[in-house]
Amino acid sequence: MMKKAPRPYRSTHRAGKAAQTRAAILGAADGLFRSKGWTATTIAQIAAEAGVSAETVYSGFGSKRAILRLLVIGAVRRDTPKVALTEQAGPAAVLAEPDPARLIRQFARDIADVLVGVAPLMAVVRSGSTMEPELASLYTELHKGRRKNLLAVAEALARIGALRPDMTTTAAADTIWRLTSPELFTLMRDVEAVSPDGFSVWLEDMLVQGLLAPGLSR
Amino acid sequence: MMKKAPRPYRSTHRAGKAAQTRAAILGAADGLFRSKGWTATTIAQIAAEAGVSAETVYSGFGSKRAILRLLVIGAVRRDTPKVALTEQAGPAAVLAEPDPARLIRQFARDIADVLVGVAPLMAVVRSGSTMEPELASLYTELHKGRRKNLLAVAEALARIGALRPDMTTTAAADTIWRLTSPELFTLMRDVEAVSPDGFSVWLEDMLVQGLLAPGLSR
Repeated sequence: MMKKAPRPYRSTHRAGKAAQTRAAILGAADGLFRSKGWTATTIAQIAAEAGVSAETVYSGFGSKRAILRLLVIGAVRRDTPKVALTEQAGPAAVLAEPDPARLIRQFARDIADVLVGVAPLMAVVRSGSTMEPELASLYTELHKGRRKNLLAVAEALARIGALRPDMTTTAAADTIWRLTSPELFTLMRDVEAVSPDGFSVWLEDMLVQGLLAPGLSR
Repeated sequence: MMKKAPRPYRSTHRAGKAAQTRAAILGAADGLFRSKGWTATTIAQIAAEAGVSAETVYSGFGSKRAILRLLVIGAVRRDTPKVALTEQAGPAAVLAEPDPARLIRQFARDIADVLVGVAPLMAVVRSGSTMEPELASLYTELHKGRRKNLLAVAEALARIGALRPDMTTTAAADTIWRLTSPELFTLMRDVEAVSPDGFSVWLEDMLVQGLLAPGLSR
């Protein structure tokens, strides 16, 4: 390593270190929330697991709730956590697909992949939300975020004239929002042992039958 | 009141008293579980609320889990808790309905009414099941019971030749089971503020579009 590195390099280095610490904290919290749930996970445990002080966790994130919120958003955005879902290459291609049945198929596959990561964290938010108002508000906020992303799918279908004549874009978004809920995905996984692929095949069929104008199903 | 009442009367009287005590315990437990959840509800509280000893609660029901189980089954069966759902007059009439669209409409209305009572109790079972294996097994058992009742609906549709040609009775039962889940009902009620009527209208549309052969939708 260079001695007396120029300032820009040093601050990049420091920023890199800070990013590493942040990632370690988020990684530790992710594992703890998924395995122990909301109540049993503490800032002290997250800090210990990440090899930092509780102080560092607080000053970096503010609260346990803020960490869980970032984890859910990160799980939705997968590889590029700083880019909103609908602006990412994969989902953007789905929204631009001109063939209705293919749009729905690709959407169903992509959302099943998102749900694998997100559903367990949303279950943590939901189970905590019955006890704590701060988590109840987070639960609502995250579902509103889902709604915004999924409305874009309904709008894409409307744009290519694919919706049933008796169905509004809003009603289509309602249906997409319900059928892609982490709640339903978790139920099917836990009680029916449905795989992500199985979920995606069923979702595709329901959306094709439930949303598309007759004759557009293949 | 008669002195020296004949034995049959006295044992009926005693049985009536016992039934009253049982009902008081179940009523107390129902209110406590719905408002405080699984963990915060204790046998001692149930006893106090019902005006009996904890001993009486234990000897009558065995455990907190057994009480919650009876409450869920009672909520499914509504007015006649000793008669299985599919043998009750209303649901039996739905299963015997010869018109597919009318069968689905009546089923959707009836199940929405059931879910109003059941969904909050299933949420108690579900939230407890993340912590306690005895509740996880109850959660699975209750969903298997739902499955049995709902398979009867899929079979009724198959019997009148109403299912899509590419859909098996089992696949139809899967879809009915998922769309009528307390999990989805609770999500729609809590986050979207959908009323039971709103739920039933949406469910009817999804089942008609998703299950019925083309041309049978009205």
